[in-house]
Amino acid sequence: MTTQDARTPASEQKNEAGKSIGWHKAYIEGSRPDLRVPVRQVHLTNGNAVTLYDTSGPYTDPGVETDVRRGLAPLREHWITARGDTEEYAGRPVRPEDDGIKHTSPRGGLRNLDAVFPGRPRRPRRAVPGRAVTQLAYARRGEVTPEMEYVAIREKLDPRTVRDEIAAGRAVLPANVNHPESEPMIIGKRFLVKVNANIGNSAVTSSIEEEVEKMTWATRWGADTVMDLSTGRNIHTTREWVLRNSPVPIGTVPLYQALEKVDGKAEELTWEVYKDTVIEQAEQGVDYMTVHAGVRLAHVPLTARRKTGIVSRGGSIMAAWCLAHHQESFLYTRFEELCEILAAYDVTYSLGDGLRPGSIADANDEAQFAELRTLGELNTIAKRHHVQTMVEGPGHVPMHKIKENIDLQQEICEEAPFYTLGPLTTDIAPAYDHITSGIGAAMIGWWGTAMLCYVTPKEHLGLPNRDDVKTGVITYKIAAHAADLAKGHPGAQEWDDALSDARFEFRWEDQFNLALDPDTAREFHDETLPAEPAKTAHFCSMCGPKFCSMKISQDIATRFGDSSDVGASQEEIEAGMLQKSKEFAESGNRVYLPLAD
Amino acid sequence: MTTQDARTPASEQKNEAGKSIGWHKAYIEGSRPDLRVPVRQVHLTNGNAVTLYDTSGPYTDPGVETDVRRGLAPLREHWITARGDTEEYAGRPVRPEDDGIKHTSPRGGLRNLDAVFPGRPRRPRRAVPGRAVTQLAYARRGEVTPEMEYVAIREKLDPRTVRDEIAAGRAVLPANVNHPESEPMIIGKRFLVKVNANIGNSAVTSSIEEEVEKMTWATRWGADTVMDLSTGRNIHTTREWVLRNSPVPIGTVPLYQALEKVDGKAEELTWEVYKDTVIEQAEQGVDYMTVHAGVRLAHVPLTARRKTGIVSRGGSIMAAWCLAHHQESFLYTRFEELCEILAAYDVTYSLGDGLRPGSIADANDEAQFAELRTLGELNTIAKRHHVQTMVEGPGHVPMHKIKENIDLQQEICEEAPFYTLGPLTTDIAPAYDHITSGIGAAMIGWWGTAMLCYVTPKEHLGLPNRDDVKTGVITYKIAAHAADLAKGHPGAQEWDDALSDARFEFRWEDQFNLALDPDTAREFHDETLPAEPAKTAHFCSMCGPKFCSMKISQDIATRFGDSSDVGASQEEIEAGMLQKSKEFAESGNRVYLPLAD
Repeated sequence: MTTQDARTPASEQKNEAGKSIGWHKAYIEGSRPDLRVPVRQVHLTNGNAVTLYDTSGPYTDPGVETDVRRGLAPLREHWITARGDTEEYAGRPVRPEDDGIKHTSPRGGLRNLDAVFPGRPRRPRRAVPGRAVTQLAYARRGEVTPEMEYVAIREKLDPRTVRDEIAAGRAVLPANVNHPESEPMIIGKRFLVKVNANIGNSAVTSSIEEEVEKMTWATRWGADTVMDLSTGRNIHTTREWVLRNSPVPIGTVPLYQALEKVDGKAEELTWEVYKDTVIEQAEQGVDYMTVHAGVRLAHVPLTARRKTGIVSRGGSIMAAWCLAHHQESFLYTRFEELCEILAAYDVTYSLGDGLRPGSIADANDEAQFAELRTLGELNTIAKRHHVQTMVEGPGHVPMHKIKENIDLQQEICEEAPFYTLGPLTTDIAPAYDHITSGIGAAMIGWWGTAMLCYVTPKEHLGLPNRDDVKTGVITYKIAAHAADLAKGHPGAQEWDDALSDARFEFRWEDQFNLALDPDTAREFHDETLPAEPAKTAHFCSMCGPKFCSMKISQDIATRFGDSSDVGASQEEIEAGMLQKSKEFAESGNRVYLPLAD
Repeated sequence: MTTQDARTPASEQKNEAGKSIGWHKAYIEGSRPDLRVPVRQVHLTNGNAVTLYDTSGPYTDPGVETDVRRGLAPLREHWITARGDTEEYAGRPVRPEDDGIKHTSPRGGLRNLDAVFPGRPRRPRRAVPGRAVTQLAYARRGEVTPEMEYVAIREKLDPRTVRDEIAAGRAVLPANVNHPESEPMIIGKRFLVKVNANIGNSAVTSSIEEEVEKMTWATRWGADTVMDLSTGRNIHTTREWVLRNSPVPIGTVPLYQALEKVDGKAEELTWEVYKDTVIEQAEQGVDYMTVHAGVRLAHVPLTARRKTGIVSRGGSIMAAWCLAHHQESFLYTRFEELCEILAAYDVTYSLGDGLRPGSIADANDEAQFAELRTLGELNTIAKRHHVQTMVEGPGHVPMHKIKENIDLQQEICEEAPFYTLGPLTTDIAPAYDHITSGIGAAMIGWWGTAMLCYVTPKEHLGLPNRDDVKTGVITYKIAAHAADLAKGHPGAQEWDDALSDARFEFRWEDQFNLALDPDTAREFHDETLPAEPAKTAHFCSMCGPKFCSMKISQDIATRFGDSSDVGASQEEIEAGMLQKSKEFAESGNRVYLPLAD
């Protein structure tokens, strides 16, 4: 395994403000030359380097020219075709209603052809009849796929661990055969906690370009997967652009698009429209799909006495459908058929929690747990079809009720990866729900949740803009990393240690470059002490030169406990202490740097 | 007990942008007319009102004219004098060096007399010899002071509970007899979790006016106490302005000012200089003081092998002093004498954790816990002198090591209130340490920590400005309230319920007015849907009109589970469901509002 540096040295890489970014993209090569795992190498001023997990894709490699109109290189294509178990086919023709343009609408003919993705022509691919083409099927057969090896290098673990966790259903590796551009990643409690960022236009705002930009922006800051929750026009075309340019797995909620196709009338939804939409999206390359098949007819009355009813969009649509027809949900009755479709493309299930609580008052209620039990059943069925499966969780939950959620889910769903939205630990702070939920997310991550769906400051209030997406991702990377530390994930603390070493040694540039958000760290520091020499000054702006505790403390370490003493006994240290104390007096009792007053 | 409204009706109160603020100040009267407890009354559009705890002081009462040059009215003065156990005296003369102006400095004569606080002349007050004047002493004698009754009304608890918790040393009510302007509040695990905000100039930046403004700004957003950590010039004068204008208890670290008096040379510190500083500050009215008496000579070598040594300023100063003299810390050896001084003014101890960990790597180490054991000894001594005492805690601690901190502290310190800085749950996110620490703060609050010291986004990088102070306070109010919910504090959930009800019923104005930060919530909502009618529209900006799950859900509740059904059995609900389903079909299967497409 060797590390290859991307061509431009760190010192020449710049951020948007034209400043040197202090890190550069490198690759770790696996067992074959086409298996190159990207990492972020931070170069420290003391000559060391720290290697961090990198989700930003080819966009941060100055040696790669990216063009959103062409899309990313299909890095997994050869791995997929070499398996010989999938085949290309004509695919479903794209129709105007896929983009929300109704046959009844006078604007039906006004489709903006410029928006159609202009990249390389492609035909969709699916399993050869009778072949099981999911990573779960491969793992069960004992195979370590290139995707699994890639993930093992990223996670610094044995490839067999990756395979075994997938085989046991404790982890998923979402990798639709029609999304060869994606860089493999894994979601499971034995691995680093992952973060999902939602994007998506709605009937009210946004455009295709904005959504693609939000996707690359989110992955730039560390999003491990992105869900495209678009509900407005151009829904098919937006997704095509996002998929062709995405280095991370893309998730969707097909129900949203299906509803668009029936003019937003839940009661007019049918299995046929839904199935058609799932195939449309699977052919495009969606890696995982949220399916609210746990919202059964009998569960709906359980929500009637809730404070905030059903807050999941998918859940409320299916509840409305069940009411309108007074029938069992077609997602539930047709679930086996759906499994066959997902299996053919290796689309991963994200079993949606349509009845998740939308307020502290509704947390852990009967409606929520009744649905969870159904998700447990569905998980078992999906696995029978070799469909990789994760399970979604809440929502709004006060801290003392969080652990019950992960414990029950793990028990009922045979340790399938849990994928939660927060949870938000209080309802009182709209505009700060990235924080109310970041608290819950860190805790539930520690206790075993595999992926955290981010919440932005705009939650409950509006659609996130670029800044909100960044704030949401950074907050959730904090929660995920705090969870990795608490789980004792091997290697997680190296990052904290490198930053703390830099802090103790007043290596300001290294602190910035190691920070989750180097730009903001640098900017905040510059506000108080903008001059360049302050970056290397031996005091911090908080305390001023005379009071800096780090400086005093360094002095203590140097005087009688430097690193050569690490093996010393307490007695030796105390003897040394007396000696050092004498030296301290002889040196003129100066623990501070001489100051001009 | 009656509620009195402040004179200006809610509709006439405005925020800084001139918008109606939707709440107004009211007072709950206790057993005597001069005992009026302020509350924030939020008036909902459905005619209800929600009463919230209010820390903002007379500044938010339009019926009170405040003037920072006069200071606030001394609301506790009569209670203090009526007890007849304290007396006025001449007090210690103010000297130039109190403001950091050195006798050796050529600038000694240039003291800015304009800066001297011009308010009412006052002489300091202290205990009549032989009298125990602390709230702890009163509580032990079985007395319920007006301060205790005030606190009981604020917390919606029995005054005897307040008294008993103080008597047991499980709670403190910081209330220096020389700070009669302060509105009594309590810190203890049986009560609402409190938040402290730090302010303070340093040698590098800031001014007196800025610090006073930061104090009122912090309490406006919910800070329960404020620590003035000034270290630069005008330290005495700044504190005077802050105290005379502060409706919340003020804390300090007298060591910082003492060090200024000896030109920043730790080795020149003496008990005499320190004692003089404590008296100076006690006479001014400081309500609680951080004393790093747990940093003993023998503890210093324990820090030598740490990754980040000693990160507490007070801790590192005392460590340097111990080294320079190779003697036991004078704070430790003179602790009983210090108790006598604090007792005379009812200054509360905040026993400082000078050896708290400054990085994930150093959490829960021997240095930290050795100091904690010493703090346990000191707590016992302080209580013998009737000095109210709380104990400070870390710092940087990964999630899985947090609980040990509060559990050990509660055991070693006989349940004295714990007062922690965060803790920060990872080191990797400078510029977001309000979030890394807000996570730890919420958790340790749930487990019994009584007060949380806020961390702003500028932590480790620079001095917080006005926005940073607000962000820090709001983040910590979230953590504190999440902890109150998880502890099951009586009444805590009412706030969440009121906001969630407003959310479910699309009462946007009520959502904003109930939010911890109404201004930002409103601003975020306006970014997506600025038009005034959107505030009452029956859909949210996230989903657009057709997809709003709240709307669908409301519909479900109305159709077959409205509030009149609360007492219905499951069978009745299901029978009703069939009926409602029929009605649903008859109504034209419309779950959405009719839309113009």
